[in-house]
Amino acid sequence: MTILWTRRHILSLADFTPEEYNAVLQTALSFREVLGRRTKKVPALQGQVVANLFFEPSTRTRNSFELAAKRLSADILNFAPGTSSLTKGETILDTAKTHLAMGTNMMVIRHQQAGVPLAIATELDRLGAKVSVLNAGDGQHEHPSQALLDLFTLCTLINSEEPRLEQLQGKKIAIVGDILHSRVARSNLWSLTAAAAEVHLAAPPSLLPQEFSFYGRERPGRLILHWELDPALENADFVMALRLQRERMTDHLLPSLREYHQRYGITHERLQQCQPGVKILHPGPVNRGVEISSELMDDPDFSLIAQQVTSGIAVRMALLYLIAGGEKA
Amino acid sequence: MTILWTRRHILSLADFTPEEYNAVLQTALSFREVLGRRTKKVPALQGQVVANLFFEPSTRTRNSFELAAKRLSADILNFAPGTSSLTKGETILDTAKTHLAMGTNMMVIRHQQAGVPLAIATELDRLGAKVSVLNAGDGQHEHPSQALLDLFTLCTLINSEEPRLEQLQGKKIAIVGDILHSRVARSNLWSLTAAAAEVHLAAPPSLLPQEFSFYGRERPGRLILHWELDPALENADFVMALRLQRERMTDHLLPSLREYHQRYGITHERLQQCQPGVKILHPGPVNRGVEISSELMDDPDFSLIAQQVTSGIAVRMALLYLIAGGEKA
Amino acid sequence: MTILWTRRHILSLADFTPEEYNAVLQTALSFREVLGRRTKKVPALQGQVVANLFFEPSTRTRNSFELAAKRLSADILNFAPGTSSLTKGETILDTAKTHLAMGTNMMVIRHQQAGVPLAIATELDRLGAKVSVLNAGDGQHEHPSQALLDLFTLCTLINSEEPRLEQLQGKKIAIVGDILHSRVARSNLWSLTAAAAEVHLAAPPSLLPQEFSFYGRERPGRLILHWELDPALENADFVMALRLQRERMTDHLLPSLREYHQRYGITHERLQQCQPGVKILHPGPVNRGVEISSELMDDPDFSLIAQQVTSGIAVRMALLYLIAGGEKA
Repeated sequence: MTILWTRRHILSLADFTPEEYNAVLQTALSFREVLGRRTKKVPALQGQVVANLFFEPSTRTRNSFELAAKRLSADILNFAPGTSSLTKGETILDTAKTHLAMGTNMMVIRHQQAGVPLAIATELDRLGAKVSVLNAGDGQHEHPSQALLDLFTLCTLINSEEPRLEQLQGKKIAIVGDILHSRVARSNLWSLTAAAAEVHLAAPPSLLPQEFSFYGRERPGRLILHWELDPALENADFVMALRLQRERMTDHLLPSLREYHQRYGITHERLQQCQPGVKILHPGPVNRGVEISSELMDDPDFSLIAQQVTSGIAVRMALLYLIAGGEKA
Repeated sequence: MTILWTRRHILSLADFTPEEYNAVLQTALSFREVLGRRTKKVPALQGQVVANLFFEPSTRTRNSFELAAKRLSADILNFAPGTSSLTKGETILDTAKTHLAMGTNMMVIRHQQAGVPLAIATELDRLGAKVSVLNAGDGQHEHPSQALLDLFTLCTLINSEEPRLEQLQGKKIAIVGDILHSRVARSNLWSLTAAAAEVHLAAPPSLLPQEFSFYGRERPGRLILHWELDPALENADFVMALRLQRERMTDHLLPSLREYHQRYGITHERLQQCQPGVKILHPGPVNRGVEISSELMDDPDFSLIAQQVTSGIAVRMALLYLIAGGEKA
Repeated sequence: MTILWTRRHILSLADFTPEEYNAVLQTALSFREVLGRRTKKVPALQGQVVANLFFEPSTRTRNSFELAAKRLSADILNFAPGTSSLTKGETILDTAKTHLAMGTNMMVIRHQQAGVPLAIATELDRLGAKVSVLNAGDGQHEHPSQALLDLFTLCTLINSEEPRLEQLQGKKIAIVGDILHSRVARSNLWSLTAAAAEVHLAAPPSLLPQEFSFYGRERPGRLILHWELDPALENADFVMALRLQRERMTDHLLPSLREYHQRYGITHERLQQCQPGVKILHPGPVNRGVEISSELMDDPDFSLIAQQVTSGIAVRMALLYLIAGGEKA
């Protein structure tokens, strides 16, 4: 079985094709199998350099990419903004060019400003560099690898041996929480509407402006906005809670955490109106008792949170592998 | 020669059996041999993941575990609490579970609170995870790998080819310094009394409460407390000085550093009342001129401090290897 | 072709011989070839430990040494001064001895104080340790690997297949900027005057004391000091701009950045008085629009900055390889 892949950078899911989604799912599946072995390593990227340029600090996503790269036998360069040349007045593009000159093959980039990974990719292309850029989260814009690992988690739940985008067609998926500020939500909106799912967004009005319906225009799936939780949960197959930044309180976008939990927190009781077998997702880290009740989070009958983390390694291996254009594991 | 090992976690030495001590000594001996080769590596843990979860910062112990894991060809995940999800409100157990979901096989855990490694191990066992937890220092409770490397250093000094716990029987070992706050001392009390050594503790009353005699109850060895240094040193075979935290001064538990050194500092002169050939140990880092005189610390006829560091790599390789249950190097 | 190499430490270029310069150039050339392969790795230092002791923070140089060591299959220990035992009162020599006891084979040392790498090397030699020390920048003293990568960049530009020190004989090289505080300049003065180049220094009087003519005494090359830029640039073959620390302003050693750029900044216009084909170098990170105009920095017809970074990996591989005394790649 041959996988065609022509995309050099992964910056956004806005124009991902069904073939690309399925290529990621299929490749991630073969790496999930590798991770089940005692020796969880393949030599696919031996001698290649993956640079983790995390201008915005992150342990979880950086660890996941680092472990994925190690499983592919790549060498890793970790960029720590605190002690870096940036504090000496170097520009972000200069930092990227320095890593290019060191022989980096792939750059995994996180930045607090939307568009930085794209700007770096554009400049590297202009220079004729054969380097790939992977957006690991840029401002409130996109977080493609998170949405792809969510997709892999959902599709392998439906068919563990042959996950495909089409399996989500018509499924009702509720996304609950701070949608306005969430790059995770935005990337998921692209993938889930591409899958022809029925996506219901639920959040207080201050965190869910009407403009969000834009993401559903001319897409196979449907997008419905709610300012209350219950209509989003009703008959839902999956519920994805988003992380609530505590700073939102001080911005006066939200009342207290307790009131938030009462109105939008996911609990066992609230899930009774969903489809039987409903599952919950969360990109982590969770504020226990805020987005999700502590009991529900620890209930393996409902929570897919651990599976999401595990999927993250396989999906990020797949992304690095596909953009490297290497041979199969 | 077959080594039986059934313990999954190494959290405390309180219930270590003589067979377990000797298994560690014997395994560490074979790894010490590996470290003497030009290529100091074995493939024993290839493809396995060791996560260093150091919630309390440490360079020395973390480096030692990291190098031990690399020598066994494992992959390492380093957790840096400063930039981590902990600052985003994630609990310690959630951090551990995230590392579990990433495919971690062994967690090396240091925390400023006693009991955290045990709590994590208990939760991971409850979840049915086949993951091992290694306590790398928890509050003032225990630091098992330090006591085991001390034991290996002492026993290989007595018999470099066949170190065994029984070789310390009847040896007089003085432990000097801030015993009250020392996890190193507590783990050493378990191992040395298990070895039937005669352990003499010497410290100011404020740093050595009577309750410490508890550690000697119903153990093969003897435990004697002193509030003066000289009776502890008299005829001692080995002297172990403990690190003095400078914060103790501001807590009014101690007079000046100078007075401390005069009363409890180890010097060439003071060692004259010990057995000929007496050796000194210190877990490091040393406050030169406080716990030990600078001249003595640099005197290779007396100091075992460098050997302790070297033993640390071999012993930590042995611990990782034994709990992984892998084949021999 | 056999390379003779007897030097254990690389601390300064003051007494480097032409044979040693050429051994570095030749070895770096062979590693540059390795870096062109798809699998950019050789097993030359497998199982050996390289410790990066960067007491002064640095991303760029540390990354370059780390990647060089990984390309040689060595294991790396990274020392982070912030969280280290130094904050617990340990001396620098004790830190080095701890790394020695852990089995370190090579120490790459950066420190804000001149002479620290030498002091550590001297102490390790006194102890009979077979460990190599590599100075990665000490105060305002030296930065040998930077000058050697500059040399490799220049010589491979002249003859990409056979770079040799002698190729710089009679070449006019201008070094411009904060020479007084620059370890990069000092190391380059040793190498360029050894190569019999004609070295012209240009800087404001406050940053270029007359004493600098010392570096040219009894050397094959010539050294000429200028307090204006134009005579240094006239007919120059190469122009090396140095980084300007912004702190110099507050020290009242310099007027404004704008005035500095007007008098000493390198621009397309200013380069018209140089030899046709003139190239510019900069050790990075560059303050765009201060030392070099932003347009010039990005002009591949003039800038060698990216090549310097690339040369850095090959040269540092060569240095680690030569002092390790291992077999050829």
